[in-house]
Amino acid sequence: MEVLKRFGVSMDESLLKNFDEFINRNNYKNRSEAIRDLIRGELVEEEWLEKGHLVAGAIVMVYDHHKRELMDILVDIQHEHQGLIISSQHIHLDKRMCLEVIIVKGKIDEVYDLESKLRSVKGVKHASLAKSTLGKGI
Amino acid sequence: MEVLKRFGVSMDESLLKNFDEFINRNNYKNRSEAIRDLIRGELVEEEWLEKGHLVAGAIVMVYDHHKRELMDILVDIQHEHQGLIISSQHIHLDKRMCLEVIIVKGKIDEVYDLESKLRSVKGVKHASLAKSTLGKGI
Amino acid sequence: MEVLKRFGVSMDESLLKNFDEFINRNNYKNRSEAIRDLIRGELVEEEWLEKGHLVAGAIVMVYDHHKRELMDILVDIQHEHQGLIISSQHIHLDKRMCLEVIIVKGKIDEVYDLESKLRSVKGVKHASLAKSTLGKGI
Amino acid sequence: MEVLKRFGVSMDESLLKNFDEFINRNNYKNRSEAIRDLIRGELVEEEWLEKGHLVAGAIVMVYDHHKRELMDILVDIQHEHQGLIISSQHIHLDKRMCLEVIIVKGKIDEVYDLESKLRSVKGVKHASLAKSTLGKGI
Repeated sequence: MEVLKRFGVSMDESLLKNFDEFINRNNYKNRSEAIRDLIRGELVEEEWLEKGHLVAGAIVMVYDHHKRELMDILVDIQHEHQGLIISSQHIHLDKRMCLEVIIVKGKIDEVYDLESKLRSVKGVKHASLAKSTLGKGI
Repeated sequence: MEVLKRFGVSMDESLLKNFDEFINRNNYKNRSEAIRDLIRGELVEEEWLEKGHLVAGAIVMVYDHHKRELMDILVDIQHEHQGLIISSQHIHLDKRMCLEVIIVKGKIDEVYDLESKLRSVKGVKHASLAKSTLGKGI
Repeated sequence: MEVLKRFGVSMDESLLKNFDEFINRNNYKNRSEAIRDLIRGELVEEEWLEKGHLVAGAIVMVYDHHKRELMDILVDIQHEHQGLIISSQHIHLDKRMCLEVIIVKGKIDEVYDLESKLRSVKGVKHASLAKSTLGKGI
Repeated sequence: MEVLKRFGVSMDESLLKNFDEFINRNNYKNRSEAIRDLIRGELVEEEWLEKGHLVAGAIVMVYDHHKRELMDILVDIQHEHQGLIISSQHIHLDKRMCLEVIIVKGKIDEVYDLESKLRSVKGVKHASLAKSTLGKGI
């Protein structure tokens, strides 16, 4: 079970006033929650600097499904990386455009490799990556 | 139907050599495809600078489901923004940690607002956003 | 004179352990200093989201001075924005390449406008921006 | 002497229209110049992913000079990294706040190390980094 620790933080009054306004703007319930979230954000950012680190994330692609071979190519690429992929989900944005979200869990360099292979396929209009974490120790 | 246009690009030999290596490293099939992708990437980045622009994307959250009220709070928040949310998907990372991907389509400031509300809930360890596009005109 | 305020922060032991390692890796002297710096970093990031905000910063350009007209063009552009520019400094990187740092103080949209005008001149190889702050209230 | 190469690029009419608008908004003179700049931007971004790569850049700090020991500490740190530092320049933002720009040329991990040491000094309100390049082959 987790043990809760408590410590003191000192801050100039003017910085504290600006921080409290930041807390309101960003919906945090209290200073501790905001500070924990800033720290966790930094720790996850550092995780993503080490190529071999195990992470989770989601690759979002937008593509034109009228190019039918495209879907076969995208499925083939995903099967070659199936150990990395937890699931993928398909959304119809409009008559032509599809959005696909591929949830991944694995090493960072494998995530980047998969993203690069998907992004570079003709017909894929855009690929982006939400960098997340397995949540260990945060 | 889309009309394909063609134009010439000039480049110093040394830059072209470096570009061709970039193309190989990043799995592009040819120079045109790489250039189109760079341009589309910039256009989508610019889309995300205008608060009122319509976009698509995915919010990825990692949270500890042992805090049971947490799941109720997260569902409540999502219902308050149901017009924005296309679907959400839940992954069990380990015994404690869940990863949830919420696919959104709507105005940028609404996407940021939803992300902020989810991120600030106690028990949510991390939230990140994959910024994507409806794919119009790219 | 600034009044120093003090408040308590609570954190799971495992997060605190990871935070203390973060503090060591990043040379902070203590937890308060690290937390203040994370907060200030977020506040400055938010400053840069409002186009009309007054900020400070530095534009760094690398260009090939063998294109002599280039230097005239760059000086002309800077004179058109002289109200924004505090100083500029020139470094000889090698026989061909120059690095120039332009320190700016003014509205964000004016900073971006100047950066864009410099970056787009033929012969300018790269332009980047260090986003800083006037330091009010932080 | 550099040899100029020329090649053809194909693009859907709608993407080309959006690209031409992008070119106008961003002050580029023609499509070739815009494409070269996008490519150079990507190449420099990739440079900054390899810790040992030689780069140029500028660290911008804002600090409160009323803490007089602070200036001694900052100078000491800079002297310990003098091989990395080309020059530094000091601006008086207002009665209390100083902005200092340190131009650096060296290995990426050394740049980050210096930035981290400066940023973590008590009294330094903000540090940011403009990531630039030696301009080789671009």
